[in-house]
This record gives sequence, C-alpha cells and structure tokens, in this order.
Amino acid sequence: MTMAARSQLTSALRRLRLARISANPSRQVALELEQSLPRSSVIRCFGTSRPRSFRTTPTVSATGKFTSESYPDIKRDSRFAQLTEEHVDYFRSLLSSESAVIDGVTNEGAADDIEPFNSDWMRKYRGHCKLVLKPGSTEEVSQILRYCNDKMLAVVPQGGNTGLVGGSVPVFDEIVINMSRMNQIIEFDEVSGTLVADAGCILEVVDQFLATKGYIFPLDLGAKGSCHIGGNVSTNAGGLRLLRYGSLHGTVLGIEAVLADGTVVDDLCKLRKNNTGYDLKQLFIGAEGTIGIITKVSIHCPQRSPAQNVAFFGLESFDKVQRAFREAKGQLSEILSAFELMDEGSQALVRQVTKNESPLEGQHPFYCLIETSGSNADHDSEKLQAFLEDVLEKGVVADGTLAQDETQIKTLWAWREGITEALSHLGGTYKYDVSIPLKELYQLVEDTRARVDAAGLLGDTDEYPVRAVVGYGHMGDANLHLNISTRRFDERVEKVLEPFVYEWIAARQGSISAEHGLGVMKKKFIGYSRNPTMVGLMKNIKNTFDPNGILNPYKYL
Amino acid sequence: MTMAARSQLTSALRRLRLARISANPSRQVALELEQSLPRSSVIRCFGTSRPRSFRTTPTVSATGKFTSESYPDIKRDSRFAQLTEEHVDYFRSLLSSESAVIDGVTNEGAADDIEPFNSDWMRKYRGHCKLVLKPGSTEEVSQILRYCNDKMLAVVPQGGNTGLVGGSVPVFDEIVINMSRMNQIIEFDEVSGTLVADAGCILEVVDQFLATKGYIFPLDLGAKGSCHIGGNVSTNAGGLRLLRYGSLHGTVLGIEAVLADGTVVDDLCKLRKNNTGYDLKQLFIGAEGTIGIITKVSIHCPQRSPAQNVAFFGLESFDKVQRAFREAKGQLSEILSAFELMDEGSQALVRQVTKNESPLEGQHPFYCLIETSGSNADHDSEKLQAFLEDVLEKGVVADGTLAQDETQIKTLWAWREGITEALSHLGGTYKYDVSIPLKELYQLVEDTRARVDAAGLLGDTDEYPVRAVVGYGHMGDANLHLNISTRRFDERVEKVLEPFVYEWIAARQGSISAEHGLGVMKKKFIGYSRNPTMVGLMKNIKNTFDPNGILNPYKYL
Repeated sequence: MTMAARSQLTSALRRLRLARISANPSRQVALELEQSLPRSSVIRCFGTSRPRSFRTTPTVSATGKFTSESYPDIKRDSRFAQLTEEHVDYFRSLLSSESAVIDGVTNEGAADDIEPFNSDWMRKYRGHCKLVLKPGSTEEVSQILRYCNDKMLAVVPQGGNTGLVGGSVPVFDEIVINMSRMNQIIEFDEVSGTLVADAGCILEVVDQFLATKGYIFPLDLGAKGSCHIGGNVSTNAGGLRLLRYGSLHGTVLGIEAVLADGTVVDDLCKLRKNNTGYDLKQLFIGAEGTIGIITKVSIHCPQRSPAQNVAFFGLESFDKVQRAFREAKGQLSEILSAFELMDEGSQALVRQVTKNESPLEGQHPFYCLIETSGSNADHDSEKLQAFLEDVLEKGVVADGTLAQDETQIKTLWAWREGITEALSHLGGTYKYDVSIPLKELYQLVEDTRARVDAAGLLGDTDEYPVRAVVGYGHMGDANLHLNISTRRFDERVEKVLEPFVYEWIAARQGSISAEHGLGVMKKKFIGYSRNPTMVGLMKNIKNTFDPNGILNPYKYL
Repeated sequence: MTMAARSQLTSALRRLRLARISANPSRQVALELEQSLPRSSVIRCFGTSRPRSFRTTPTVSATGKFTSESYPDIKRDSRFAQLTEEHVDYFRSLLSSESAVIDGVTNEGAADDIEPFNSDWMRKYRGHCKLVLKPGSTEEVSQILRYCNDKMLAVVPQGGNTGLVGGSVPVFDEIVINMSRMNQIIEFDEVSGTLVADAGCILEVVDQFLATKGYIFPLDLGAKGSCHIGGNVSTNAGGLRLLRYGSLHGTVLGIEAVLADGTVVDDLCKLRKNNTGYDLKQLFIGAEGTIGIITKVSIHCPQRSPAQNVAFFGLESFDKVQRAFREAKGQLSEILSAFELMDEGSQALVRQVTKNESPLEGQHPFYCLIETSGSNADHDSEKLQAFLEDVLEKGVVADGTLAQDETQIKTLWAWREGITEALSHLGGTYKYDVSIPLKELYQLVEDTRARVDAAGLLGDTDEYPVRAVVGYGHMGDANLHLNISTRRFDERVEKVLEPFVYEWIAARQGSISAEHGLGVMKKKFIGYSRNPTMVGLMKNIKNTFDPNGILNPYKYL
C-alpha cells in the first residue's frame, strides 16, 4: 500500500472517530504487545517471522498424565505385537541414517529423547511410545509400513505435532513415524502456481519460498512455524485464509501416500482438472493418518497480493458483528481475505498475560479483525476507506484502528493469534472448535457461560475453578473457538460442559470439529455430527484401506 | 461498469490499436453473430437468456447407431434381470405421479417417448432402454433402488443429459432414472451464501434465482440451460469459472445421495468447515452416478460481481498467449474470472457456420477471451485499461476489442461458446477434453494435425475425411479441447488418432479427461491417466458402495 493511500485512510478513520470518540489511541500501544509477548508466542508473519517453536514450552515431565490414564476406557488392542529387539534391528538396517531411529526399546536411556514425540505441545496427551522412526524417503515409509503390517505393529504418523486433539501422538506403544526428514520442495511451476513438496516441509518455510516467487500458500495458521504441510493436509487444516482461498479439498491437486500394507499411491497430479475416476486423494485430506501416510503434496497456490491492509474494530453486539460481516463481504468483496472475531473476554485474557493495552480505547463486547489483500494498493485503500466510513457512520462499528505498516499488521494479528498462547499461560483450557450457522454462532458462548455460572463454577476469585468462558474464531467461515479457561482441574467442569456443548451443536446441525479434527479427543463424539449411516460407511473405508487397523489406532472413528 | 469507465477503456484501446492497425473494426459485426446463430446455439447469459434447448436438435432416428453396435466389445451383463410386466407394475404403484413412468416394456407405442432418454444430444450414444422412471422425492429414489438392487435390475441416473461421453444414457436395457421432477430450491442463506437444492434443478434456473439475491453459482458452462446441478456435481463439471471459484470439490458443502441398496446418505452439510471423519461426499463428486444417485446438493455460492468486462484479443503465437495469461494473472489478479483460448481453425468454423465476420479485423493464429468480475466498476476499468495498454504496447497481443455492454459481452462469449455448436453442424467430431501442463498445451493440436495430414486424411476438399483439427479451451485451467471435424465416417481417422492422443497425453502426465468424465467413451482409456494401484483402489470403492454393480454399468471403470 502506498504511503499516500495509507495516510488518506487514516485521516478518514480519525475524522470519523473523532466525531464520536475523544481521541485517537496511540498506535504505539499495539506495537508493545508483540514485544512483550513470550518468545514462543504466536506471531503471524508475512515471510519474515522466526518459526514458532512449540518445543520451547516445557516438555512434559515424568508427572504428566498419560492418555491411557485420562481415557481409561481406551484399552490397548491385543492384536498388536509388542516391540522387540528384532524389530528395532530391522528398522536400523532399513533406515539410511543413524539418527532416523530413536530406540527406547533396547535403550532405556533414550526415554528423554522420545518424550517430545510422545506428548503434544499442550501437555494434554501423552503416550507410551518406545520407538521413533524418521524415514527419509517414500520408499522407506513403504518398507516400514509393509513390515509393521506384516508384524502387526501399530504406528502413529506425526508431522509438526501441533494438533489440538491428540491425533499425532501415541496412546500406548505405537511406533511414531515422524516425517520431519522428508522436507524438500520438489518443484514449482511459476505459470500455473502448482507446488509439489514433501509432506514434512514446514508450512512457513514453504510460504517463504513461495513469497520469493510472488505466490502464497493457500493456507495460513498460527502454528505455521512448526506444522508440516503433510499434517495440514492430513487434518484438512482450515485457518485464516479459507474465506479467501477455500478449503484444501479444492486447492490440493494431488498427493502421494503410502497405505498400511506399504503400497505407494501415486496420485501426485499437478493439474487443476482431472476427471478420471473417483477422486481418492480427497479421502486422505482430513483422514488424520488413518488410511495412509501422505508423503508428498501437490497444491495450487494463488498469487501473492502486493497490497495488504488490516483493520481492527470494536463493536457493541454480535448483531452488529454480523452486519459488519455482511457489509465487508459486499463492499470489500474480492479483496477480503480474513474476517476474524474476538470477544472481550478473550482479549481481556491476552491483556492479562501480556500486560498491554488494547489497540482501541475503552472496551467493547466484540472485536473484529479484517484483512484485505489485493493487487492494487490505491484501489484497495479506496474500497476500505468507503467501507470504514460506511460502517462507522451507520454505527455498525463503535471504534476502529488501521495498521500503518507491516509491523502494525503483525501486532494487530497478535491480538487474535495470541489468544491460544495467552490461555495456555493461565492454566488448563477446555477447547471446542465448532461450526454453527452464523446467526447463532456466539449464542453458544453465552449459553455455556450461563450454564457454568449457574453451576457456581465461574468467578473472578480462586475459589471458582473456571476463570472465563470466551469465544473467538473465523467469523468468515462460521467457525467458533469456544474456550473455557480454568484455574485447576475440577471434574464438575467437564460434567457441566459435556455432553451439553455437543448436544447444543447437534441441535443446530453444526459441526463438533470445524477444523481441529477428531483425534483422541472427539473420537467418541462423532455421532453428534455424523449419522450412523455415514459412520458405517467411514468404517468400511477404513477397513478397505487398513484391514489390520495399524494406522493411528484408538482415534478418529 | 459505468459508461464513463467504458468509454475511457475504449478510447485507450482505440488509441493503441490505431497506432498499429488501420481502423477500429465495427462492433456491429459481433452483434450480428448472435442473431444469426441457430436458435439452439450456445448463448452465455447473465440471468436473462432463454434456456439452451438441446432437445431442439433432431432426436435420433430409427437409423441411429446403437452404442452396443459402436462398441461391440461391451456385452450385456447376464447377471442383470430382464424387465417384466411385474416390475413395471411395482414401479407404477410406487411412484406418486402417472407421468413418472414411461413404459416401453408393456407398451411398444412408448418407444418414441423413450427415445430422448435413450440417446445423447450429440446422437453418438444410443441405448435399448424400455423404462424411464421420474421419481419425485428422495424416498422414491430410495425405494426404486432398493427394489432394483433386490431384483438385479441395472439403472442409469440421468440429469439434463448434456454430457459428452455417453455417461447418462443406457447401453442396453438399463432403467433410466431421470431426476427432472426433483427440481426445487430448498433454502438459501443470504449471509453465508449457502444454497441447498434438489439435484434436478437446472443450472441456469438456480443461477437466475441466485442473481436476485446478489449471488452467483460457482460454476458456469455452455449447457447451463439444460444441465442439472446434480449432474454437474456427479460429473465434477469444470466450465468457465473454475479459474476464479475453484472446483466443485471445494465449493460443494454437502450432498444427499441414495446408495444402490436404497440407503439414503444424508451428508447435506451446510457448513464451510466440518472435520468429522472422511469426507465421503467427495467420492460422489465426479463418480458419474456409479456409487449412488445424488438427490440434493448444498453449495457455497460467491457474491455476484456488479462489474463485468470482456475483452477479445488476437495473438500471433502460442508463446504470446502464455505471456498474455501470465500478465493477466499478475495485473488483473483477483478480478480475473475467465481466460479462454481459441485457435484460428476453431473460429474459422464458427464463421463458416454463422457467416459472420470476426470481432477483429484480419485473422490471427490465436484468440483469447478475458473476463473480469469485480465489485467496483471504476477500479476494474482502471486495472483492465492498464493491462490492455501494457500487452498492446509490448506486442503481446496484436489486436483486441472490448465489449461495450451486456449484449456485446454475450456476443463475444458466443465466439467461444459457439464452437461446439458450429462443429455439430458440420458433421461428426472427434472430441478430446484433456489437461496438459500449460507450456505444451497447444502442441497436442499441432502434433495431431501433422499426423492426420501425414496420413493423407486432412484437406479442404471432399476427398479428405477430415475438415479441420482445431483446439480451444479453458487456458486458465490448462484444459484443452482438441476437436477433429470430419466430413464422414472413415475408420482410418480413429486409427490415426487413437491411441496416439492418449499416449501423447500420458507421456506428459496430463489427464485424458479434464472435465468431461469417462462415461462409455473413455472407460477403457483410464489407464493412460491412472496407474493400476489407483484403478484397483477405485474398483474397491465401487464394490463397497455397489456390490451388485447395478449403478450405471458398462461405464467409468
């Protein structure tokens, strides 16, 4: 965006805000936020950020609870073999690199090395894995799986291990197949925008590569510094740009995957159109590694927009949030690239952790972050200016601020993306990632808060187990993140929340997992979003692709 | 687009063209094209056209060749029962409407009524069907299929019957299940843009409904006046706007379908995000009715762009076409909604049939049609003007014209969409719908032409069986339509073409069916685009969903 365009926008905004509000809050406030967030905080970037390191959060100590303890109903499948020295010897001889095998079977001293692969970053799920394999090629993945299938050894495919539902860590002694060594960008066609890359490529690394070519990965999410594109595809990640670029079911052109029996499925199509038979790759998108391990991905990347703008608003009601969304869709149309929602509760938690002031003066029940991306800075500025004037004049939004440069863009985004991190600093969180028809989206937060409050569990002082019930998410995709922040574990909380939340969603034909997937966490709740016919068909698919059930057991279905 | 913006653009174009070309060709020329095209011609419309009536082309006479004669290798599957009076009685008692059963089993006089359901619009495929059923509800579809599955009666699901590969007409005596009575729009959410409608809705009717709401169906194609949205989804239709709105795999949110045994699969999700298990609906998208009959569709519709522009260019080489495409992607970016390619040969055939002059003076080896759609007419005009000036000045395009109003927009589109119709007036056509990496896209036409010529089959006079080898298609999607226009049937032509064309495509990892599907025509050629592992997995899927194989037999796999 040109400087002239920016200052034009700012003055329009200031003029309007001055008419109703006392003064323009200092832009500096927002800048401080980023600086004061912990090093491992979620900072969204446009090609320049350091990778987010989930591993800098403390790993699970010996006192961390095992998933098998948290979920006592899940029993180890006795059909699976126990790992022996003979198995380890086979894998050692198979894998080309010495560092490709972390062996806790014959070497008890390796337990610490294995721990990061056994646990998720939230310290919520923890397995009993004793063997980690890091294949370096599709052929190695194939040979590992063929052997495991023959020997009835269960496995867990693992990408960046940034998931939220326990899908990428073992429950019992499953072998972890970690994809981090398969991390090459294979080819990129600068005319069509088609990228082919290994599954173990880190999303941000790929996006930075694409930036040098004038393209963008059609997916963006907070964990971009750690997550793998193979994991993104396996979990059908949604994230921040689905509103603009659509789902991975539309953008992924092809995959290469290895089935449970070692068969390599080469469907690495690089074409946008290919109507030759069932589109089998679609089954792997969102299958969470239960029918095969994705080894390569071919994806259609859009051109990177040279002009980017971010605005941040305060609004007085959810009704006004909906009006703002309709206006943004109508007026910003083809340049709208994100419309994110945060409630005051979620922002208060960010303020509490970061000790920073909001980018806006005063508090509002709701906040929205709007991003535009376009090819012409002046045109975008003009559209955004007209939109700002319109929504301020109509009283749809109460206050707003506009990022003046890339640093401020990141800073405003941190108020949205920093919520997850802030919550994790405050204790345990019950996280629900749901999709609900837009009209009732926020009602779930209000109903849940009222229910927790009525049960006497919610309060500002230490005697109450629940600190806050907050909501935020991807408004543009009708995707709400309902988070219940707790001070300590109290079994009454979960009883108040479940199955209430799931029943509430099912009654509105919503989804109990909009983008996080099923994993361990939601395996038993799939019936709230899928009928028995669908679940039965899914089990047929699972049995067709993985008859021995060795791929990511105890999860998903 | 405002008048001021239009005239600004026109004068920019005229100024540039005058500098290199003698005069500005009359816009009237283009207008005449539409008027002189036959009534059944393909006219693209923006909500006002008459539906295209494929049925006004003569139906097949008694002398039309049966598919079973053209494909003598296909034998009737003896596991299927022969239709009896008892079967007909059952269907009569089942279906609520008298007109829902066209019975040629007990009434030989019904043969003429059945003929349109037995034959495709190109008169290339013709079956021996004696019973047409038109269910009025999902429950009726379910009961029909349950009965057929029990009695081993084969069926063919049929939408608007506008396909090009023989997928929607019977080969032998399969029962036609025609979906035209299930044609209701069920609901539309004006905030999210989610539409739910019966499978038998005609695409153009749905699009006209959406126009009144300020939305657009995310798919457009020449047959919109006849084709059904259920058929579009079943064949994963691509069409003219895939470049902008992506494939149906991304835009379809849910389906309702009936399996071979009558089970109703209710996956009519209305949410953009739903990660609860395998995305089974994806298998039905492009399955051509072989694993179930789609009865309802839920789809995400984008907002309709108020500003629309169409430009038509002449270019001197395919290299320049590629450069123009890159420039258009870069400069028109988020407003580019179509980039279509036509070679001079294809345009010559349109001129020959319509007796009209080209919208451009003189001839060029290649023509491109560029469409933009955006929310701000002045901004779009400015972007398009800059693009026009740039590509004319750089000599990327040799000449161009710009539509001045909606009538001219339709007229320019007719030069692209009229090709299929023009070809059908000139005799038989060998049609190949292929996807090839962009760089080599047109090479297939040149290589094919050279090969036909070398065989002594191509010429301007009647002694040669081949009139022309032409290419056109959706450049933006790397989707070429290679058409060989013939004067008469000559078995040497097919021998020269096949398997040459398929081998040529396979060598470049292209697709032998970009958007038309497999049907009868390409069933035996799937191996050129899919490896044996993939085909084997597909057959597993088919057997899982339709173990008796009653759904659309003799096709697809």
